Amino acid sequence: MSLSEFELIERYFCRGLRIRDDVVLGIGDDAGVVRVRAGHELVSAIATLSAASPGVNIRRPREFGHRCLATALNRLAASGAEPHWTTLALTLPRAEEPWLKAFSRGLRDLAEREEIQLIGGDTTRGPLAVTVVVDGTVPSGKAVRCDGARPGDLVFVTGPMGSARDARGRTLVESRPQATAGKRTSGSRADLPVPRVRCAMALRGRASAACDLSPGLSTAVEAMLSASAVGATLYPDRLPSTAPLDHPGISRSQRLGLSAGGDLELCFTLPRDERGGIEALVAGLGVIATEIGEVEATPGLRLRLD
Amino acid sequence: MSLSEFELIERYFCRGLRIRDDVVLGIGDDAGVVRVRAGHELVSAIATLSAASPGVNIRRPREFGHRCLATALNRLAASGAEPHWTTLALTLPRAEEPWLKAFSRGLRDLAEREEIQLIGGDTTRGPLAVTVVVDGTVPSGKAVRCDGARPGDLVFVTGPMGSARDARGRTLVESRPQATAGKRTSGSRADLPVPRVRCAMALRGRASAACDLSPGLSTAVEAMLSASAVGATLYPDRLPSTAPLDHPGISRSQRLGLSAGGDLELCFTLPRDERGGIEALVAGLGVIATEIGEVEATPGLRLRLD
Repeated sequence: MSLSEFELIERYFCRGLRIRDDVVLGIGDDAGVVRVRAGHELVSAIATLSAASPGVNIRRPREFGHRCLATALNRLAASGAEPHWTTLALTLPRAEEPWLKAFSRGLRDLAEREEIQLIGGDTTRGPLAVTVVVDGTVPSGKAVRCDGARPGDLVFVTGPMGSARDARGRTLVESRPQATAGKRTSGSRADLPVPRVRCAMALRGRASAACDLSPGLSTAVEAMLSASAVGATLYPDRLPSTAPLDHPGISRSQRLGLSAGGDLELCFTLPRDERGGIEALVAGLGVIATEIGEVEATPGLRLRLD
Repeated sequence: MSLSEFELIERYFCRGLRIRDDVVLGIGDDAGVVRVRAGHELVSAIATLSAASPGVNIRRPREFGHRCLATALNRLAASGAEPHWTTLALTLPRAEEPWLKAFSRGLRDLAEREEIQLIGGDTTRGPLAVTVVVDGTVPSGKAVRCDGARPGDLVFVTGPMGSARDARGRTLVESRPQATAGKRTSGSRADLPVPRVRCAMALRGRASAACDLSPGLSTAVEAMLSASAVGATLYPDRLPSTAPLDHPGISRSQRLGLSAGGDLELCFTLPRDERGGIEALVAGLGVIATEIGEVEATPGLRLRLD
């Protein structure tokens, strides 16, 4: 890119950033340098999004910038880590000032809210692609893993499925695009989804396993069960969902699949004796944890209607 | 991407990897978890490459895979850090097995040589873009920065400029593509450039500043001088270069510019009293450090012919 394009990117991504006192060298050097606090491990999550990714509408750059960071944050959250630092790679066909301004605003507003600092980045020219890395820390040995689910554990999700929208502004399971498109309000959870960072930190030492649901519920849960060498029965009717899921064109089993992905929610498993405490705990964080099934020894994912 | 494409990616990127004992959770979970050794800081560098990036030929996937990791490694190297872990984001139009196999081989062979472990990744569909993050450590307070150059310091580069090749296989400063294209031998430094990791580690506590030259010599050096609030006079005739630079069509000042970039070399500045020791030290690592100028108090980059 030309120097003026570099300057444009510098203007929107390098200035006026939050300064954390654990950052030794921030953006502007070839590499970021940070201090990891004693007694903690480093946790790193990555998300890459293109115009074709679930939930992405690149013509809404503020929402897109938010979603890029939120997706990496939700993936980090699944481990129960606290996010601290982020690194950004942009592949752009050109540097359009209004687009970059709105994109950086979406990304930076969320970074500010989560108290994370941008410590590095890179840009190149090409068809649009964005990669965000979020690094954080967790007390040593306390990361929530995807392979700890045990038979008898209960399965929870942190919120409604199906709220992510596609490039035409439709929810990904919607069959009547026009009817619902009119109801959109900017700034809603679908537009600016809040990653489940605080909720997941509250699950440390309690949840036996957790996973990010952005790849789609069935894909993510099957991977978690497989890593844990267990199976589960889930009850699709209990699954919280946004309104379009109730459309008669969507079958009950499709509700569970929802493999289009893009939902920034978590699925976690919990030993039965943790059930009472956890629902109150996450509700105190403004999150409704819904029990949707139970872990079993037999491998595979089974659906049962209540 | 479909499940079979995920499986293909898993086959080439997730199996048979180097296992480091400081990795708590590697690829396969939502986030990687590692232990940063006591008394050290975390260093993180990112590189993003598309088909249009300098030095890239995506139709040579092994070389491209190597270059993606090597570019991030050279950026990390500029800080004097030791690399340990890497994270990979792939945006691919489709999962072509022969291409992925060769690409992953190039990337994995270099990871193996540098003793780094892949701890996370993400994939999405779209026009080709690759982002690589390399994380490493440096003893606390010992990172080589880009802002430490002082008047009177000497300016060095670690190797010849202009060896990176474009998508047609030509070196980026070459004016006679056919004549030189025939001389290519696969596996040369131009095809599989070795990032200057060991060299930069030897510079810790000696170099006053350093920068990665992949953005192009003049762009990178000007940024380093500006960060240090100094200037420099450089002598283009001293600059080591690959053969095509001697072509009469390339002026002396153009040799210095070489802003096409893609060279995986370092530029560093050194207090004069470190000069004797450093040349022998880096030569012992198989690197020829060439003195190309000196740092001055007056801002800006000046060229002078010997």
